[in-house]
Amino acid sequence: MEAEKPFLEVCLTPALFYQYDVLQSIVVVIDVLRATSSICVAFQYGAHCIVPVTTTEESLAYREKGYLVGAERQGSMVEGFDFGNSPFSYMDDKIRGKKIALTTTNGTRAIDIARNAAMVVVGSFLNIDTLAEWLIKQQQNVVCLCAGWKDTFNLEDALFAGALAEKLQPHFRLTPHRDAALAAMRLYDLARNDMYEFLAQSSHRTRLEKLKVDEDVLYCLTPNQTQVIPVLRGGVLYNLRDMLQKDKGE
Amino acid sequence: MEAEKPFLEVCLTPALFYQYDVLQSIVVVIDVLRATSSICVAFQYGAHCIVPVTTTEESLAYREKGYLVGAERQGSMVEGFDFGNSPFSYMDDKIRGKKIALTTTNGTRAIDIARNAAMVVVGSFLNIDTLAEWLIKQQQNVVCLCAGWKDTFNLEDALFAGALAEKLQPHFRLTPHRDAALAAMRLYDLARNDMYEFLAQSSHRTRLEKLKVDEDVLYCLTPNQTQVIPVLRGGVLYNLRDMLQKDKGE
Repeated sequence: MEAEKPFLEVCLTPALFYQYDVLQSIVVVIDVLRATSSICVAFQYGAHCIVPVTTTEESLAYREKGYLVGAERQGSMVEGFDFGNSPFSYMDDKIRGKKIALTTTNGTRAIDIARNAAMVVVGSFLNIDTLAEWLIKQQQNVVCLCAGWKDTFNLEDALFAGALAEKLQPHFRLTPHRDAALAAMRLYDLARNDMYEFLAQSSHRTRLEKLKVDEDVLYCLTPNQTQVIPVLRGGVLYNLRDMLQKDKGE
Repeated sequence: MEAEKPFLEVCLTPALFYQYDVLQSIVVVIDVLRATSSICVAFQYGAHCIVPVTTTEESLAYREKGYLVGAERQGSMVEGFDFGNSPFSYMDDKIRGKKIALTTTNGTRAIDIARNAAMVVVGSFLNIDTLAEWLIKQQQNVVCLCAGWKDTFNLEDALFAGALAEKLQPHFRLTPHRDAALAAMRLYDLARNDMYEFLAQSSHRTRLEKLKVDEDVLYCLTPNQTQVIPVLRGGVLYNLRDMLQKDKGE
């Protein structure tokens, strides 16, 4: 029986993603502080779709097509955009039914490199239980892709990967020769009672502290604020529920 | 004052090594199970030098020049060689004064990719305190390079990086934007009281269990069995003490 469980893997940074065969896998893109958290919030507030784009210029070009546009660089909102990377900036009824184009330092890039996977979904503490339950049902290999910071490892994405892996583990098997999932679960287990404190020394929290976005950090570390699962189709993120309803309707 | 301390970094796998600027850094190559442990033992038993080579063919070619030759592939000694990768195979008076050519799956490759660093030394639990004291005296940036397993992350090398980083930390500063050293220290702190048990689920211990080399694992996790520091010069590893004496004599 054990041999028939699908594989569960954790990729600690996009720079290592080439090592994973994802054509048959669901990739969970993780950028806890803050891109994938904000994307979950945007769908929770009714966004129709989110187009992840690589450059701020591309993002602005979408504005001319009627999109709301978001851009974050070095942790701050770029001037002239509707949103930055704060989840709170997406808690607004003006986004209901809207199309959004978004570029962030790490998160949207990670979504882009994962695009050839069998399926790409977006994970954050905000939708962790809904996502875990759905992943278990799919009975397909899962690769948790930590967006990190400019291709380097970061702690908060590893913690989320560990938290998700812990929930998935009974239904999956770990890949031989690879310890990243184990390490992520161990780190999460250390941090679970106070992730905010655990991250106190981490590079990204230090970076965000300077930007005075402590409330963002606290919110992004709060599990189960939404039941949305953002999913990539044709290079565009949709709310999985909307997409399934549309598929049914067609 | 803080700003004047040298940097301390941990590189979690050779695949990420390109992200580190090592021209001004001392690189500590780490392949706890078992290459860098065995290298320390070989110098402890009086080896004159060790040439890290990439292929078993190269290694054999050195035999014709009078070298003892070692080769490990997939965890086992390759037939026709004098040594595999077990530290115990180097505990032999026949190696006193001898030149050795060695190829292993991960360790010698990691030494090779680090060769452009200001200095390359070899670390293992067996020489951890001697190495830490020496590194602190150098007042130079340090990058701990985990050899991992075929370019992927592994737990035992991260534990050693964490153990070493913990000893070095008061004298160094961590690089902004990078959490690998922090993660390694956290993992080591979890594991410190029983590393053998901590690694029980890890991929490499599982691999080595199948090879019945539990004694190797236990030995490789035992701190401070030797005071040698293997150091790379001109592509060849020497015992730092021998090299300094030679430099003095010349």
